[in-house]
Amino acid sequence: MINKSLLDRLAALDTNTVSDALDFLGLPGATVGLRPLWNCPKIVGRASTVLLAPKSDNVPTVHLITPVVEQIDSDDRVLVIAGGIEGISCWGDILANAAASKKVRGTVIDGFSRDIDGSESIGYPVYGRGVTMISARNRVVQIDAAVTINVAGVDVSENDYVIADTCGTVFVPSAYIEKVVDLGERIARRQDGMVEAVRSGRSVAEVMHDTQFEAIHVEHA
Amino acid sequence: MINKSLLDRLAALDTNTVSDALDFLGLPGATVGLRPLWNCPKIVGRASTVLLAPKSDNVPTVHLITPVVEQIDSDDRVLVIAGGIEGISCWGDILANAAASKKVRGTVIDGFSRDIDGSESIGYPVYGRGVTMISARNRVVQIDAAVTINVAGVDVSENDYVIADTCGTVFVPSAYIEKVVDLGERIARRQDGMVEAVRSGRSVAEVMHDTQFEAIHVEHA
Amino acid sequence: MINKSLLDRLAALDTNTVSDALDFLGLPGATVGLRPLWNCPKIVGRASTVLLAPKSDNVPTVHLITPVVEQIDSDDRVLVIAGGIEGISCWGDILANAAASKKVRGTVIDGFSRDIDGSESIGYPVYGRGVTMISARNRVVQIDAAVTINVAGVDVSENDYVIADTCGTVFVPSAYIEKVVDLGERIARRQDGMVEAVRSGRSVAEVMHDTQFEAIHVEHA
Repeated sequence: MINKSLLDRLAALDTNTVSDALDFLGLPGATVGLRPLWNCPKIVGRASTVLLAPKSDNVPTVHLITPVVEQIDSDDRVLVIAGGIEGISCWGDILANAAASKKVRGTVIDGFSRDIDGSESIGYPVYGRGVTMISARNRVVQIDAAVTINVAGVDVSENDYVIADTCGTVFVPSAYIEKVVDLGERIARRQDGMVEAVRSGRSVAEVMHDTQFEAIHVEHA
Repeated sequence: MINKSLLDRLAALDTNTVSDALDFLGLPGATVGLRPLWNCPKIVGRASTVLLAPKSDNVPTVHLITPVVEQIDSDDRVLVIAGGIEGISCWGDILANAAASKKVRGTVIDGFSRDIDGSESIGYPVYGRGVTMISARNRVVQIDAAVTINVAGVDVSENDYVIADTCGTVFVPSAYIEKVVDLGERIARRQDGMVEAVRSGRSVAEVMHDTQFEAIHVEHA
Repeated sequence: MINKSLLDRLAALDTNTVSDALDFLGLPGATVGLRPLWNCPKIVGRASTVLLAPKSDNVPTVHLITPVVEQIDSDDRVLVIAGGIEGISCWGDILANAAASKKVRGTVIDGFSRDIDGSESIGYPVYGRGVTMISARNRVVQIDAAVTINVAGVDVSENDYVIADTCGTVFVPSAYIEKVVDLGERIARRQDGMVEAVRSGRSVAEVMHDTQFEAIHVEHA
């Protein structure tokens, strides 16, 4: 219940605001380079992590990622995938269809996706580094899941919070989500007020002077 | 006649499927990074290759690529261009207009294009690494054509088959096109069946288990 | 008055043509990699330059760029920003609102922007290297303005002319603008004529032969 509520509150923010809240708290979480691979909507949810690695032999194995999708039993999941190979796909349209039918909210890949039209055609959001047509088959395997992975320089653990929109992808450790959302809401209100002030003709130098913005600290303390 | 038919069959596939067929046959052909430079349609055709190189003197010469466009006398051509310089254009709108009037199906550049709005305005597809405004004039010259060139790591010969769509660009040597199309059609049917199975609620882990997919080999053998 | 007229004439050209004019005159000015960060219209105007640098201490300071926006008192300005950090934003939606209310024509960044939806929602054009959500706050400071800065390899001075469109961004020193516009208009006419010639069925090899194009030199001499 509290998590659902936190998710809804997180969903009302954007990545810029969440990144600012992390900054104020001295926490990592913002990533550069993981952006929408089609013109897809924002996703907000909790991470189901998958760790991939280059394949080291030719024995057929269980297909990567499918066991993770299989076990999903809540409607708040975002698949977060790390460890692939540059230019090789970690995500395609069979997986997108399977994830969509499990009500997964979207996929974030520190890597590439293929079949991107297939994900778009069913409205399934995919964020990542780029698009390719080259299959993971016989190139990439899954070596672990539900563990802490490194995504574009940020450690992401199972159940961490994820927000992804036009500006990129941000992760929030579950231990900090309440603080981050509280602060994010305050930053969003202030930011909205600053935009209003500027639109109504107030000096932007005055509105954006750091003494104004740093006041968040005082307010927050 | 048989080529026309193979082209039509190739045109019914996508780059993901053709790349998978090449994988099964152990052939190269898939490239990373050569993507649509405007929101352009898929192109399928046979390569007319052009090899460029940095200009080494200041003597005016015949304009690059124009002699190749000039000599085209069939309606199945895709211009495939390699050997340019990073950030310098190899393709502009006069060439696009000339190619369109010769019924060329599109251009794939291991490099950059300029005047991209001009190509878009006449609906001429251009795939490549990026867009610039800097002219090839006095910077890049054509050194050969109708020869084997290296495009994003793949050797492409005159008359090789080309398919390019949202996911990128794939080349198929003419000697293998029948095998690749046969196998691609089988893969496409299987892929469609897998998406259907997943949509109808079957376990994705079961549907995508490698034993299922590797069955293509048996079927093909 | 004469400047206004030159600006209008520049606005009738595109970056490809202006880059060609600079080439003929042996001048730098064309850049690679500074492209629209949303699907924004062409901008043409005169540079107000801003030089940023990584922050070296934690003392709160005046917010970067705001003093420059504050002092703008004409309707021909384009903000041109250099010296940021890879992956860190130099531009957001409060600044976009402030700039829009000052009738600034757009922003070109040798770097990144955040809040890009905010700029898009008010129709404010932003060109640069990419999008991020990470704030400049406590990471980047303004160290100078209205000075000569280096933008993607090109020196840009206060009041230089700027043109940016789908193909990228080009700068023209004010001392050369008349020559560049004169020559650009002649190139544009010739280019239009070449497209017409090709469309009407003339040989593209003949139309684009360098002797044709180099005739611009003679005409210009």
